[in-house]
Amino acid sequence: MIKVYGDLISGNCHKVQLILELTGKPYEWIHTSIMDRETRTPEYLAMNPNGHVPTLDLGGDNYLAESNAILFYLAQGSDFWPNDARAQAEVLKWMFFEQNLHEPYIASSIFKVQFLEASEELDRELAAAQPTGYGALNYMEQQLAGTAFMTGPDATIADIALFAYTQHAEDGGFSLADYPAIRAWLARVEALPGFVAMPPYE
Amino acid sequence: MIKVYGDLISGNCHKVQLILELTGKPYEWIHTSIMDRETRTPEYLAMNPNGHVPTLDLGGDNYLAESNAILFYLAQGSDFWPNDARAQAEVLKWMFFEQNLHEPYIASSIFKVQFLEASEELDRELAAAQPTGYGALNYMEQQLAGTAFMTGPDATIADIALFAYTQHAEDGGFSLADYPAIRAWLARVEALPGFVAMPPYE
Repeated sequence: MIKVYGDLISGNCHKVQLILELTGKPYEWIHTSIMDRETRTPEYLAMNPNGHVPTLDLGGDNYLAESNAILFYLAQGSDFWPNDARAQAEVLKWMFFEQNLHEPYIASSIFKVQFLEASEELDRELAAAQPTGYGALNYMEQQLAGTAFMTGPDATIADIALFAYTQHAEDGGFSLADYPAIRAWLARVEALPGFVAMPPYE
Repeated sequence: MIKVYGDLISGNCHKVQLILELTGKPYEWIHTSIMDRETRTPEYLAMNPNGHVPTLDLGGDNYLAESNAILFYLAQGSDFWPNDARAQAEVLKWMFFEQNLHEPYIASSIFKVQFLEASEELDRELAAAQPTGYGALNYMEQQLAGTAFMTGPDATIADIALFAYTQHAEDGGFSLADYPAIRAWLARVEALPGFVAMPPYE
């Protein structure tokens, strides 16, 4: 059975839980605490030298890292990965955008607000992340004004990738008040059969 | 014929030139200056609302953005994209890593050193990028100590994606002196049939 090493305080880990639940695959979840540095033990680094969660364990020393690569692999043969190469490229476009212009600003801000001590330095970092983070939300809003999901009428792994941190953007200081299309899309993702919510921050 | 809107001061654009040359595809290159803000005109934003280069123009109002998604699309059917889904996931793993932990630190530093005015604020930003940037290089070095290319004996689009900014890492203040496996790999990529160098910074 597929094993996942993950920590559900991480949206990147929630992505993997979502694709497994949405496609109805059996799996074992092995909680691996980021805050307790369980991702930095020699045993963990042997599976994932980058020391991040999630890691997918396919058995026989076959480990796959990077949440979006895991989404790609687990979505094969499902409705969440289209058949046509041009459509696949469009899904990947939004997933690369997520890792480059969304996650580093919005996820980082969520982490800082939720888990780090307040300081003037932290406030400066949060302020510095706002323009690019809002730029990412503007780009999504423009797209979602015309389509139900990120690439068209059907949900794909692009939606799972972008849902993971957009759902908690307000916890990182990004208001979604002026983003009606994003809010409607979040509700559409939450209504997918098999959807499971990320646990609340403690 | 495929058209590419790009600016070869950008490694992301060099990626697209490389896959086209390495796979021998005919194309038309339409120089689109970042510094002259030709990526922010209404005509350009209609093709690529994010206002970045490169953009692939496939004809009939069919535009594809995001350099790594373009690599994926143009590599279909070539030796630079493996057939097996598990091997494909490994290629994408390195490409998502590139966009998340390499490009935002190393490419950003190259751009700041080459094109922005020196200042104390800039020096602080460059210093702040060093730990994660060197972390990315360490991760690559560890992998390349055991394989000729990023995912094994053969070059894939993961190599093209990571080559683009690693080649100029030293121009952004990242010394490759202690990275012999990366330096040998850079030479291996440069020796691929059809390789074309990125023009020097002016």
